[in-house]
Amino acid sequence: MNDFEFVSPTHFAFGRGAERKTGALVRAFGGTKALLHFGGGSVKANGVYDKVVASLDEAGVPFVPLGGVKPNPREALVREGIELVRREGVDFVLAVGGGSVIDSAKAIAFGAVYDGDFADYTFGKDCKKPPIVPAALPVGTVLTIAAAGSEGSCNCVISLGPENLKRTITGDRLRPRFSVMNPEFTFTLPPYQTACGLTDIFAHVAERYFTPTEGVLVTDELCEAVMRTVIAESAAVMANPRDYDARANIMWAGTVAHNNICGVGRLQEWSSHGIEHELSALYDCAHGAGLAVVMPAWMEYVMPAGPARFARFAERVWGVPGGDTASMAKEGISRYRAWLKSIGMPTSFSELGARAEDIPRLAANLGLREGQTLGTFRPLTTSDVEAILRLAAF
Amino acid sequence: MNDFEFVSPTHFAFGRGAERKTGALVRAFGGTKALLHFGGGSVKANGVYDKVVASLDEAGVPFVPLGGVKPNPREALVREGIELVRREGVDFVLAVGGGSVIDSAKAIAFGAVYDGDFADYTFGKDCKKPPIVPAALPVGTVLTIAAAGSEGSCNCVISLGPENLKRTITGDRLRPRFSVMNPEFTFTLPPYQTACGLTDIFAHVAERYFTPTEGVLVTDELCEAVMRTVIAESAAVMANPRDYDARANIMWAGTVAHNNICGVGRLQEWSSHGIEHELSALYDCAHGAGLAVVMPAWMEYVMPAGPARFARFAERVWGVPGGDTASMAKEGISRYRAWLKSIGMPTSFSELGARAEDIPRLAANLGLREGQTLGTFRPLTTSDVEAILRLAAF
Repeated sequence: MNDFEFVSPTHFAFGRGAERKTGALVRAFGGTKALLHFGGGSVKANGVYDKVVASLDEAGVPFVPLGGVKPNPREALVREGIELVRREGVDFVLAVGGGSVIDSAKAIAFGAVYDGDFADYTFGKDCKKPPIVPAALPVGTVLTIAAAGSEGSCNCVISLGPENLKRTITGDRLRPRFSVMNPEFTFTLPPYQTACGLTDIFAHVAERYFTPTEGVLVTDELCEAVMRTVIAESAAVMANPRDYDARANIMWAGTVAHNNICGVGRLQEWSSHGIEHELSALYDCAHGAGLAVVMPAWMEYVMPAGPARFARFAERVWGVPGGDTASMAKEGISRYRAWLKSIGMPTSFSELGARAEDIPRLAANLGLREGQTLGTFRPLTTSDVEAILRLAAF
Repeated sequence: MNDFEFVSPTHFAFGRGAERKTGALVRAFGGTKALLHFGGGSVKANGVYDKVVASLDEAGVPFVPLGGVKPNPREALVREGIELVRREGVDFVLAVGGGSVIDSAKAIAFGAVYDGDFADYTFGKDCKKPPIVPAALPVGTVLTIAAAGSEGSCNCVISLGPENLKRTITGDRLRPRFSVMNPEFTFTLPPYQTACGLTDIFAHVAERYFTPTEGVLVTDELCEAVMRTVIAESAAVMANPRDYDARANIMWAGTVAHNNICGVGRLQEWSSHGIEHELSALYDCAHGAGLAVVMPAWMEYVMPAGPARFARFAERVWGVPGGDTASMAKEGISRYRAWLKSIGMPTSFSELGARAEDIPRLAANLGLREGQTLGTFRPLTTSDVEAILRLAAF
């Protein structure tokens, strides 16, 4: 096991009616005027927005609304938010939505207190030593999608410039002070979005699970526990979107998958996320859908570098019976693909709107310089990434 | 799944040499003068004390030492600590040791800022609505035993009065601000203490696992993951006490077992802990050893109230093959007992120094009033507790 530091200070208020605590939580964490940040119309249509506003009103917290966050959130709205926060004297950023809204809120919370341009602190997947944000306004969230894990994480991903280059900002100061999680808020998600969320949660664990680090049984076990939960509850929730317990188990799994309690003490992978970010940047596809296409191809490509780990994945996560390592490893990947298909995820490039001829550009956009590699399970060069994208394409 | 709130803000610094961060962490959490609280001579003999002092010196943190914490920590030393903290103007309590030292430190941290007597906030197992401590000095820990989970928990247990009645104090203000966890510090633990720790960690999960709450798959899976880890690494560490990875997996398992990430959203049990506290109060036996005697007896007694849960425990934790529920359930308990024996734990009352004639007194000491019960899986009356103790005795 590698040495590590772990901190996850977010206060999670989970369950039916948890949103009624929102205003009091803003107050408890020092907020006196909030930016109420949200996405499109869904939180207004399903009543979540009004419930949050009622809680803010009850606690006497004035707020300034800023809607319009799109999936793969853009820098333009972040800049607008920063201006608004400064102009209005806002001291707390409240995100009501999923990962994109929360990520946009985190970037605003940082940019509002930073003297320079917030993009100074963004970095790409090729970055070996990311800059750590020194300060940020406190952020709270009211989560409406189980997926990104941003409600408990220290990162955000923002799309920069006309090419929508996805870049990360990181630092414990970005961790939400609180996250309100009412699983009922996810009852009305369309099946496709639910499935994208399941895929993302699973991938957050898999990016930690596939590691070259030995002697990390406790986190191996925790990773497998979360992956099995996601698989088991996916069937329940696709069959009945209003299954409270299934929604609740998935929602808590989404947090545990990404607050790093399953990832400490080990080198982590993150190649599939890096590659996918280039896909969703170019085609504006859903992050989960992109992962569904990239991650199985990544698995196929890197499996020969560590078949024993893939055999364990097959046995412990997918229930593949013991046998020879290579066959088990293959069967595990095959069951993973079948599961993605069963929940309605795309499994090919074309379903995603992607084109094979873009492969060199997608790989180049990762910006790996000569001698640089991506990931740890099998460190990848630009040509490895092209090979993975070709596996995904055909 | 039940509604819940979860917060675990402790900063964990884990790994080889982590103790070198101690002084800087005290400073980071606002400490300018520390109480250095510890137990007997072992931290002085094995060099841990000197390493911590060196780190405090390097960070320029003056300190006042207070040693002498015994297992099942007593109120007298807590009172001495409170006086010392007040007299010396200490603003940070640093525990160097295991659960007893940390618990004593937490009580001091509370008592030092409380106007009345710290024992006002203690409560027994019969308490339905515990008082929550309103404030406390910040606490940090340097952990030397993987067992109690107090390094991440919000509770402490103190023995009160001439009868050593074990009483709890609780509240998020008691959670350590940081915990330094170097698995190497556990290399020199005697096998019996290692085994007591393993038993305690396992029990912390089992007290959460055996629940009447339905629809909590994610935490069921997490509980099973931690229990399997403890079982697997127990063999490694009993064979080779200097197996770093085994020690590290056990140490992190001990934290995850008790910071409640495995216990949210469900009614919890805690009868065995409650009953054991009366045993260690009367006989001053090790808490883990007491649990090894009480918990299997508790399992036998309550199993008929929920055999399906025990069959799941047997299959998922102990690898018992599928079959009829009752046989599986019994086999799981039998394997649990065999495991306790394999790591050198006592499995009978007499090995513990306990006497069958004390049973009525032990049960009465729990203080259950007419109509009150203990636990949730099968709520227990005083006569149920006596029956469990008789099962443990013979």
